[in-house]
Amino acid sequence: MAADRANMAIALLHYPVYNKRREVVTTALTNLDLHDIARSSRTFGLERFYIVTPSAEQRSLAERITGHWQEGWGADYNPDRREALGIVRICTDLKMAVDDLQAGFAKPVKTIITGAAQRPDSLSFPAFRQMLAEADQPYLLLLGTGWGLTDECFIAADHVLEPIAGAGSYNHLSVRSAAAIMLARLRGTQQEAL
Amino acid sequence: MAADRANMAIALLHYPVYNKRREVVTTALTNLDLHDIARSSRTFGLERFYIVTPSAEQRSLAERITGHWQEGWGADYNPDRREALGIVRICTDLKMAVDDLQAGFAKPVKTIITGAAQRPDSLSFPAFRQMLAEADQPYLLLLGTGWGLTDECFIAADHVLEPIAGAGSYNHLSVRSAAAIMLARLRGTQQEAL
Repeated sequence: MAADRANMAIALLHYPVYNKRREVVTTALTNLDLHDIARSSRTFGLERFYIVTPSAEQRSLAERITGHWQEGWGADYNPDRREALGIVRICTDLKMAVDDLQAGFAKPVKTIITGAAQRPDSLSFPAFRQMLAEADQPYLLLLGTGWGLTDECFIAADHVLEPIAGAGSYNHLSVRSAAAIMLARLRGTQQEAL
Repeated sequence: MAADRANMAIALLHYPVYNKRREVVTTALTNLDLHDIARSSRTFGLERFYIVTPSAEQRSLAERITGHWQEGWGADYNPDRREALGIVRICTDLKMAVDDLQAGFAKPVKTIITGAAQRPDSLSFPAFRQMLAEADQPYLLLLGTGWGLTDECFIAADHVLEPIAGAGSYNHLSVRSAAAIMLARLRGTQQEAL
């Protein structure tokens, strides 16, 4: 019998997000976001990492990045990168990512959105981790770029995950770092605290 | 009375580390390692993030990076970056980093080295977190670049921290992602698991 598919995936959305002036924009994807989050996702057993952007040019760039490391000297130089990039899927919009994840499950995909701000009725990390234990229920974790996903995105999502709490007033993790922490908390198997 | 100084700091070492052929090299520092780890460190209340490289040219580059965002258009554009870069110190070698951290404490600094491989007698995350509760005992967490710090570094360190465990055989977190996970586990205040 085939191994159970990992019931969590990550989508990194480049639109619709705010810029520093709270305008709704499409951000540019970065080579390093793609590599880092693919590696973190793979390390914690995910089978899908969706890069979502409405920009055709950006999707081409993403395909070149994932293709480059898949073939040619790039792939030979660092097979670890190739294996991580194998889980990347490039999507035009969130629906495309949801549909792809849905294909592996009977139960409807639920979206869990993330951000840096405190919001009412958000799910704690331990609570979400418990929900993930239901292996046939798929979850798509939504990460935003720029200054974060729009308020409409938060309203539309099925759940909101609590933000990662820092140690004081400064709380500006990069999306790469935030993704890694979320993955370790939700899919890690090590004891984290006594 | 002044607030207690954070008793943990991070040092990112660019030498001596292995390359993919297990030769001992000096790696090039990257703008993004510097920014990301500075932001993660600041978010979790650290007061020092040491960039360690024997290369004078690389130290100049680091100073330009941290200086650029401290003044001029860079600083104005994104004050969050400036605040994070304020904790960066650029060092020629590990001793310089240890000495800088030592200046804030009476007890001798202890070094805790990290890497991806399992090693005997390593400290678990919960155990190290407990040790950190002794607020006047300073610890310097050593992170390596390239293919990791040399065996000699591991022998010389006071303690070895257990590696971050992934979910399977693929375990290739970037140093940025690993640093974020370590910081969340050692300095985070949120409940991580039920």
